[in-house]
Amino acid sequence: MSTQATTPFADGPAIGLICRNCQATYPLVAQHACWQCFGPLEVDYDADALARVTRESIEAGPDNMWRYAALLPAGIDPATRVTLDPGMTPLISADNLARALGMRKLWVKDDSANPTHSFKDRVVSVALTAAAQLGFERYACASTGNLANSVAAHAARAGKPSIVFIPHDLEPGKILTTAVYGGRLVAIEGSYDDVNRLCGELTETDEFESTAFVNVNVRPFYAEGSKTLGYEVAEQLGWRVPAQVVIPMASGELLTKVDKAFAELAEIGLVDDATCAVYGAQSSGCNPIATALRAGTDVITPVKPTGIAKSLNIGDPAAGPYAIDAVKRTGGWMADVDDDEIRAGIALLAETTGVFAETAGGVVVACLRKLLDEGRLDPEAETVIFNTGEGLKTLDAVSGGPTHQIKPSLRDARAAGLLG
Amino acid sequence: MSTQATTPFADGPAIGLICRNCQATYPLVAQHACWQCFGPLEVDYDADALARVTRESIEAGPDNMWRYAALLPAGIDPATRVTLDPGMTPLISADNLARALGMRKLWVKDDSANPTHSFKDRVVSVALTAAAQLGFERYACASTGNLANSVAAHAARAGKPSIVFIPHDLEPGKILTTAVYGGRLVAIEGSYDDVNRLCGELTETDEFESTAFVNVNVRPFYAEGSKTLGYEVAEQLGWRVPAQVVIPMASGELLTKVDKAFAELAEIGLVDDATCAVYGAQSSGCNPIATALRAGTDVITPVKPTGIAKSLNIGDPAAGPYAIDAVKRTGGWMADVDDDEIRAGIALLAETTGVFAETAGGVVVACLRKLLDEGRLDPEAETVIFNTGEGLKTLDAVSGGPTHQIKPSLRDARAAGLLG
Repeated sequence: MSTQATTPFADGPAIGLICRNCQATYPLVAQHACWQCFGPLEVDYDADALARVTRESIEAGPDNMWRYAALLPAGIDPATRVTLDPGMTPLISADNLARALGMRKLWVKDDSANPTHSFKDRVVSVALTAAAQLGFERYACASTGNLANSVAAHAARAGKPSIVFIPHDLEPGKILTTAVYGGRLVAIEGSYDDVNRLCGELTETDEFESTAFVNVNVRPFYAEGSKTLGYEVAEQLGWRVPAQVVIPMASGELLTKVDKAFAELAEIGLVDDATCAVYGAQSSGCNPIATALRAGTDVITPVKPTGIAKSLNIGDPAAGPYAIDAVKRTGGWMADVDDDEIRAGIALLAETTGVFAETAGGVVVACLRKLLDEGRLDPEAETVIFNTGEGLKTLDAVSGGPTHQIKPSLRDARAAGLLG
Repeated sequence: MSTQATTPFADGPAIGLICRNCQATYPLVAQHACWQCFGPLEVDYDADALARVTRESIEAGPDNMWRYAALLPAGIDPATRVTLDPGMTPLISADNLARALGMRKLWVKDDSANPTHSFKDRVVSVALTAAAQLGFERYACASTGNLANSVAAHAARAGKPSIVFIPHDLEPGKILTTAVYGGRLVAIEGSYDDVNRLCGELTETDEFESTAFVNVNVRPFYAEGSKTLGYEVAEQLGWRVPAQVVIPMASGELLTKVDKAFAELAEIGLVDDATCAVYGAQSSGCNPIATALRAGTDVITPVKPTGIAKSLNIGDPAAGPYAIDAVKRTGGWMADVDDDEIRAGIALLAETTGVFAETAGGVVVACLRKLLDEGRLDPEAETVIFNTGEGLKTLDAVSGGPTHQIKPSLRDARAAGLLG
């Protein structure tokens, strides 16, 4: 597949792939690592094409992430899109939560509102649209759960076969919610990092030649989908970026792409100023990026993940060094929180905003609190936190039930203290 | 509360409440039954005010259900809204599903995309906005699960206390997802109909004088929220109504309000023609409305509900006779399906559209199939089916898991047949 010509992407602004380390360039093919230095590739754009994008052209677009198609590597022609039309999720003014934390202005960008209820629908839509253009016939991924849901659902909508690889110990909600779409679902007796390694090997086999692994062989396209979260926050704030953002980290890629999105918007003149301190949030059970930052290095020491925030449990995070760079460059910081803090974060968010987040959202709220306590984050500066997933998928992480149980009578209601 | 003046609603098009049976009129107060004949009350509008609404005024509104505020009894002033801003959920072209069923054109209106992932967010937003205007200080409901989620989440966002009443045997997903918002949650040892009866009694007590039960004492306002589902379908089709709709029935009210929405749009000239055959879908475990229709009567004989479609398990459905009237008047019909058919409906919808529905959505798909098989529904006519809830809330209803389980090695992948 990797010898395919660039023709399929002729309408869009992408002109090639470029190595994030040595800047070697490649055509727009299914390739994720540099042949010179083994660095990760990312999409390279025609700066003039990006500069032609205006607020008006975006606002005239559909009410989903494809309004930013002219800033993405694939999908500028609606007929080519392989998508559930995610995006334009709510940016919620979290006034009660701000009060509880002593902050002046706080927003929650709630990506649980996407079709399969996580931000992964964004990256999958871009990856599979590119994959279809490149001629791939089957859709695949290595996943901690949310990505599996999204790939299987996208394949079902598109009428294509899917094969999804997950660690065998995922939350039941995430397994069932993949299985229901009817594709192949392969449980791997190992960690996510083991799953990811196996998928890398499978892409090299003849049998998987026409299979697009969204986060392996078409990863450069995939990763660009995360930019839309940043674009939306800026547009929803009236075309400006917030002073601070707090973003959950698994591979670290979401954080780097939101930072990139803000910078792009400033470069093409859609926002006046891209100054935004970027903060990263991890679970203490899998905190290799935060640990490296605190140790003053950008060399990530892989860990064996533990803890309830399974969607963030990537022990060997590919974009970790770039996340550290973005955080240091923007004056942000990182924190990590344990399982009890995560549970408390889920509850605090739900009780103050009506948003029921999965464990990754609990990580973000708890890290926000910790960063405030540590004096790292300014309570007076406008802040956006990202909820990337849905509480219904990680019910095991929360407990709770009826506060009262009674028979259906006024007498019982009175005896239970419900009538004063 | 019921003696409150109508002033709070002065800006909106609602002018009073009117009895659906004897047409007696009342002011806009918290009252749901007629003092003359005990018939149900509904909201009465100023026809001139409705007629001033244009396509342009709607399209200039927010991208949620409040774009139709000028057609609703409360919330025309954004500052008065008690809401999670639901609505404008996707209308999905279900081409694979249409092919599977031999239909020409089929759409899925997917209301699982609402903030708490069911259509109940619409009715709760209207009910609580009216309730706040009427001076109520606490928010409550009798619920089969989805409504509980929505009321508790709305109260959390608004910073108000909530008290929610549910049958004790609900799906764990729906109990936890209410409990997480932190309000009072009362499990009743009985059926939904028992819960509903108790809530009716509680509204008469002094201790609940300032408590708005969204589906009891402010029910006329609540019910109007369902109209927005009909408005959206028509707008999303380019301001026309489909030839056929299939709608799940619990109380039967959703069906009557979608029918009413289409008629209103025609009356005020926003669509040319409101001709739409309305079909109702029930579970065989709770089919009193479909049974009455087939028996040629509009007298509903209450049943004791059974079966997995718990969100539809209302054995004594208040709007049943009106649902039968709408179905007969429009040339539609009703069907009911058993638990195995419901499970098959969930799977068929997921595998062909990427939409994972709760049991109520499975009921609709299975009833669509049955109505086609019976020759009641025209496969050549454009049809919209309604998915009103989220599969993640009723995981117990589906089964499924990995199709393969292997160790993380190419050798194991080959042995499992994944490499050809």
